[in-house]
Amino acid sequence: MSSTTLMRQEMLETPERLADQWTANRDAIAAIAADLTARPDAPWWVTARGSSSHAGAFFAAAAGLGAGRVVGEITPSLFTVYGQKPRLAGAVVMAISQSGAGSDINAVVEAANATGALTLGLTNDPASQLAATAAHTIDLAMGPEKAVAATKTYLGTLAAAARLVATVANDQELEAALERLPATLADRRDHQPPLEASALAAFDKPGFVLGRGVSLGIAREVALKFKEVCVTPAESFSAAEFIHGPLTLVGPGTPVLMICLDDATRPGLIDTAHRLAELEANVTLLGPDLDDVEPAAHLSVISRPATGNVFTDAIAMAFDCYGALEARAVALGYDPDQPPNVRKVTSTY
Amino acid sequence: MSSTTLMRQEMLETPERLADQWTANRDAIAAIAADLTARPDAPWWVTARGSSSHAGAFFAAAAGLGAGRVVGEITPSLFTVYGQKPRLAGAVVMAISQSGAGSDINAVVEAANATGALTLGLTNDPASQLAATAAHTIDLAMGPEKAVAATKTYLGTLAAAARLVATVANDQELEAALERLPATLADRRDHQPPLEASALAAFDKPGFVLGRGVSLGIAREVALKFKEVCVTPAESFSAAEFIHGPLTLVGPGTPVLMICLDDATRPGLIDTAHRLAELEANVTLLGPDLDDVEPAAHLSVISRPATGNVFTDAIAMAFDCYGALEARAVALGYDPDQPPNVRKVTSTY
Repeated sequence: MSSTTLMRQEMLETPERLADQWTANRDAIAAIAADLTARPDAPWWVTARGSSSHAGAFFAAAAGLGAGRVVGEITPSLFTVYGQKPRLAGAVVMAISQSGAGSDINAVVEAANATGALTLGLTNDPASQLAATAAHTIDLAMGPEKAVAATKTYLGTLAAAARLVATVANDQELEAALERLPATLADRRDHQPPLEASALAAFDKPGFVLGRGVSLGIAREVALKFKEVCVTPAESFSAAEFIHGPLTLVGPGTPVLMICLDDATRPGLIDTAHRLAELEANVTLLGPDLDDVEPAAHLSVISRPATGNVFTDAIAMAFDCYGALEARAVALGYDPDQPPNVRKVTSTY
Repeated sequence: MSSTTLMRQEMLETPERLADQWTANRDAIAAIAADLTARPDAPWWVTARGSSSHAGAFFAAAAGLGAGRVVGEITPSLFTVYGQKPRLAGAVVMAISQSGAGSDINAVVEAANATGALTLGLTNDPASQLAATAAHTIDLAMGPEKAVAATKTYLGTLAAAARLVATVANDQELEAALERLPATLADRRDHQPPLEASALAAFDKPGFVLGRGVSLGIAREVALKFKEVCVTPAESFSAAEFIHGPLTLVGPGTPVLMICLDDATRPGLIDTAHRLAELEANVTLLGPDLDDVEPAAHLSVISRPATGNVFTDAIAMAFDCYGALEARAVALGYDPDQPPNVRKVTSTY
């Protein structure tokens, strides 16, 4: 029996599983991309829960930035609890579910099929109900996930979503970065210093995780994992929203982790970091290639290795954070595989 | 000079201002509804920030439940920070901005116009940039809002959004409830016992505000106001999401306020309330006509007067909560008109 947690074991498998994913899905993604390209004015929707919903937020940012599409989120309760069948004729609906067994997500896909939408299922189980229901399936191919806290399936969903966007957009540079990603992450795991639990040490009280644009879905996932495995209250925000109302809660020592990618959001995030540091928050700016950002009073800067593309950088940041979150949970005395009150559920009333 | 806060004064003006709103917009809403009805397969999008975004969530629920449309949220940063111009041909884009001066929201509307969308502006200033840019404008007509914490403009946006849905759906019963709403809220203000600050007394530590479906946009707004005026950390969730990961944070005494409307979400919310009470959280179930729900250990039930329709009930619940939040802020020694660190801003980088 291994002495490490399931959460860490599964997170560490990510590089090899991502290589499997591309092998398994090359044809499927090409076929889906062709169908999407043939519908230039189709609205794109995503439906998902929990970590998969955070992957959906990443997909929305990638689709907007990479493929010129806006992506809306569909709340399953409209279909399940309220029993509505909204018009989705001509739309594209992507459903994300690790297990593929969530009855609420599957209800959305069935209704979407019935009203004339093109449905896509991203699932880690190609024998699942979701795979049987959706018109197209992308098999995440990440191997069985036993940990309560999703890690490799979240990362696999980001990679698959980025692949789909790259193919629709014919973005060779992103495709190349995704081809390199298994090796990039394996190098991070095997040869680079990991992001340590100490990077999260500011979170000894309720705090915040901020992102913007491509990093927002990563910030949301990190905030959920703070809750789930570190039993630490942490709320995520777009940095643009945070500097309005929620800023009231910032005072000396308030922990704030900011995920800062190397794209157009970077200058604004750095400005916000300095503004929060002036309020004496305990700010950590985390991202690829931040060596040019000077630490300051109340502002720590953690520069991580870059991957050559903003979307793969985002995936690498999530990978790094998972390692640090697991280590912090263990250091705090929690078992990340046994979060209080929670079980690995697949259905929602 | 009045001895009450601007926040309370403005909140208490809501009934009269809502009457003005309908007078000012009867023709505009009919014209917009005709345009929407003529585009049965148009995707609907909303773009907004802060409290207006929470009103957008209410609009999305109302449109889904009342008019059979799904509504997605567009993040302004895609247009502003990233400089993208995603395809929105044939779409309907509703922009919500109290001031109508937010450069980010206006950038979305300009781009949406340019790519062939039908744009609607909901703004409290009919002379604003938003009103000049959007193809159609609904004038919230709530009178000048000086308080930092939005109240009457949020309530006015909910009412206008519900009006639009009622007109598209030709829902006479909802239209009648909205016609009654000014008198309903005035009666609440002038003749009914208010929701007291004591209803929120559980929030002496970080807590949660839960809703689902129609109530989710209300829960989000209440959680923001907890932060903004009571300087109390409170995060909002769909009850369906909360019972997964975030449930780890619930232990003895954790404050949880649940907004429970009289619709299909009610049984599930009551079940969740009991589950949280079993974990010894400090649960308050708040909603219209809850007299049939028995209080229990760790579960308080606050039954408020009903308004005869789920959407106007939601508006009344927000009205009630604003009063209690203002009173709690004052009782805690905060000035709701001077939230720490925050100013009434209209632009976002």
